[in-house]
Amino acid sequence: MASDNTVGVALIGCGTVGSGVARLLINDHDLLASRSGLDVRLRHVVDVDFTRARQVGVDEGLFRKDIDDALKDPRTHVVVELVGGTTLARTFVQRALAARKHVVTANKALLAHHGAELWAMARAHGVCIAFEASCVGGVPVIGALLGGLLANEIDALYGIVNGTCNYILSAMAGRGAAYADVLAQAQADGLAEADPTLDVSGEDSAHKLAILAGLAFGRRIDYGAIHVEGIDTLDIADIRYGAELGYTVKLLAIARRQDDGLSLRVHPAFLHDTHPLAGVNGPFNAVSIFGHAVGHTLFYGRGAGSMPTASAVVSDILSVGLGAATAQFARLGLWPDRAEPARQLPIDQLRGRYYLRLTCQDSPGVLAAVTDVFGRHRISLSGVLQHEPDDGGAGVPVVITTAATLEGNIRAACREIDALPVVTAPTVVVRIVEEHQEKLP
Amino acid sequence: MASDNTVGVALIGCGTVGSGVARLLINDHDLLASRSGLDVRLRHVVDVDFTRARQVGVDEGLFRKDIDDALKDPRTHVVVELVGGTTLARTFVQRALAARKHVVTANKALLAHHGAELWAMARAHGVCIAFEASCVGGVPVIGALLGGLLANEIDALYGIVNGTCNYILSAMAGRGAAYADVLAQAQADGLAEADPTLDVSGEDSAHKLAILAGLAFGRRIDYGAIHVEGIDTLDIADIRYGAELGYTVKLLAIARRQDDGLSLRVHPAFLHDTHPLAGVNGPFNAVSIFGHAVGHTLFYGRGAGSMPTASAVVSDILSVGLGAATAQFARLGLWPDRAEPARQLPIDQLRGRYYLRLTCQDSPGVLAAVTDVFGRHRISLSGVLQHEPDDGGAGVPVVITTAATLEGNIRAACREIDALPVVTAPTVVVRIVEEHQEKLP
Repeated sequence: MASDNTVGVALIGCGTVGSGVARLLINDHDLLASRSGLDVRLRHVVDVDFTRARQVGVDEGLFRKDIDDALKDPRTHVVVELVGGTTLARTFVQRALAARKHVVTANKALLAHHGAELWAMARAHGVCIAFEASCVGGVPVIGALLGGLLANEIDALYGIVNGTCNYILSAMAGRGAAYADVLAQAQADGLAEADPTLDVSGEDSAHKLAILAGLAFGRRIDYGAIHVEGIDTLDIADIRYGAELGYTVKLLAIARRQDDGLSLRVHPAFLHDTHPLAGVNGPFNAVSIFGHAVGHTLFYGRGAGSMPTASAVVSDILSVGLGAATAQFARLGLWPDRAEPARQLPIDQLRGRYYLRLTCQDSPGVLAAVTDVFGRHRISLSGVLQHEPDDGGAGVPVVITTAATLEGNIRAACREIDALPVVTAPTVVVRIVEEHQEKLP
Repeated sequence: MASDNTVGVALIGCGTVGSGVARLLINDHDLLASRSGLDVRLRHVVDVDFTRARQVGVDEGLFRKDIDDALKDPRTHVVVELVGGTTLARTFVQRALAARKHVVTANKALLAHHGAELWAMARAHGVCIAFEASCVGGVPVIGALLGGLLANEIDALYGIVNGTCNYILSAMAGRGAAYADVLAQAQADGLAEADPTLDVSGEDSAHKLAILAGLAFGRRIDYGAIHVEGIDTLDIADIRYGAELGYTVKLLAIARRQDDGLSLRVHPAFLHDTHPLAGVNGPFNAVSIFGHAVGHTLFYGRGAGSMPTASAVVSDILSVGLGAATAQFARLGLWPDRAEPARQLPIDQLRGRYYLRLTCQDSPGVLAAVTDVFGRHRISLSGVLQHEPDDGGAGVPVVITTAATLEGNIRAACREIDALPVVTAPTVVVRIVEEHQEKLP
């Protein structure tokens, strides 16, 4: 930074999060100075719409339509990219790095898809990228991976990292309402986007998983090889049956060592009610990280929202200004542009337990036919729950939970089961995720 | 560090934690190098007893009886102090700083009592002190306060920060066993020290509170002005009555803004079963931190033990080697040697809810006499639970919960109540700590 401890900031994108950042930089200038020892100055706000910037009291003299006005200013030390997406934002970040400005960003999609390229570019220009705000809002999970947990070989990471999905699932379970109804209500309340695809498809969670797993395991993650399922196909019936069995459903982002590879995946999962992540509700997020020395650690807080995310952005600005983020960026070996590619296991090789809901004719011998298939695929059942038919028409639901097995076996068995004449609808599969066991020496 | 990324470490004290540190540095040299980019070398192990050092495979050529042998070596960059206590350890840290060695320590007592002096001394010699391991074992709470939460004005911090106490309280509640019995069992199992005073008196928790609160609020904490009560006087009867009312008992370390001061205290507290800290059991610890931008964040994990604590020590060594810890130490404004003294409120000014267990004669008019006292002290009751006398001899227990009031009022009322002729034993008081409300804008 400047020799007088001044940090000049250019804010690119002043929407929900950007206006929160502007608010902290303007209203809390003296608080930030007394805590950090730094004089952080908002120099430029680049956007096409300044409505929110005006609302939070940004001096109109700082408004810019052209990012170059911000980049050519030698008093700009840090560029905060809050445009989002992977097109314009990518160009802006590249231009900021080329202009030798440090970049602070909340853009998980950009880093998941183009992280290695951007990290290398930052390095080539002697600047850094800080991105605490890209994962789990203001909860400093990235800081933990780069700092306090650095001495650990990470064994597994389990996260509830999308607030919209967690809100919808909590509401479905709490109110017994169907997905579409809860989503519509969440949209009306401003808790879900008008186009919620990125959230409910699991893609947003997968972006965060790619970033977190890359740092946790010190490996370059191939985003395209992450297995991703969303919550948009979840049936309230399965949430109810799961509850009967003592399970809560959550959209989990999981990265776990298995055999000599990494299992990386995002999908709805049944957690037993006693699982540490089962009680994470509403808009709150949490990430469990298991290290070989530290054991189980868990980080919890608001995973989204204007001020929580702004908290992470501004803390990153301070960390860059202090030289802490730059030191980590320059020297750590776990950055994706330096690390080996991860060996990502295909989903068929996942080993775990499964919840299956079969829909069968209400006739003798059905269970025998079905259990025969499981037996031939060497799948042990751990529970069977057969309900009365709801209306006599659509078939009888048979809920089965299995012991640990390979997902490939489950898929093969389900293909056979769904082809049985007595089975009247495709079998629903939900993965059961058990509490991860610490491997302390 | 050395120009070739080598970090030389001298370990002072090779007991439970020290041997964990040695183990990580020796066995995981290559893992640490690939993650951090640093070549960390154990150069000296200073102790009077090398039994554990031998057990974890430290080369005997590194054993030293005299700390000066470690300090005079220019290849020693970081001194790890794991002696404990405030006498010898203080001298060792002073000598290390005077020799211009960075210090990494897990010593909460030393920092709580002499932090400001040692920080100033480190600064004067151009080195830093890193101390993640001093609070909550391997859980990177200090890293969060210095990093990812730095942009926040902290409103409150609530911690379960002593594993021994939490284990004992969890066991008392779970098994319905008395304090002395559970403690004896914990000592037999190696889960409590032979002399458990520092833990069960609350003093260890208060040391950690002094450190955490100092950083959270950017104020110099007067350790002697922290109100401290331990778990050693807790009666199993109150744990049972609390459970009937929906409360779990935990030893909490609390720092909270109230009026224009800070309320800092350690005491057993009743938490409603739905409180985020109520489910933290056994040897696990957790800290809730409330920031003005980030809202509620919670950090959870193992608060003690050889490897979890060693995880924090080694992560600190890496952070010093990277230059991140040194940058924070040099520039942040919130360090106790730079900060203003905190305005710590006396316990009488604490505002909260209370659980009271009165012991009264089984005679008419008792409740009227008692409630009259509360009325005169303007204390509103929120619940009364009167039980049958257990044996007819010791009086009838009357359990009362109050609405929020000042502790000074409670103390004055209890003095009057205990002086009533119908009251046959001193009134037991347990503070009820309700879930802290986020103050998001």
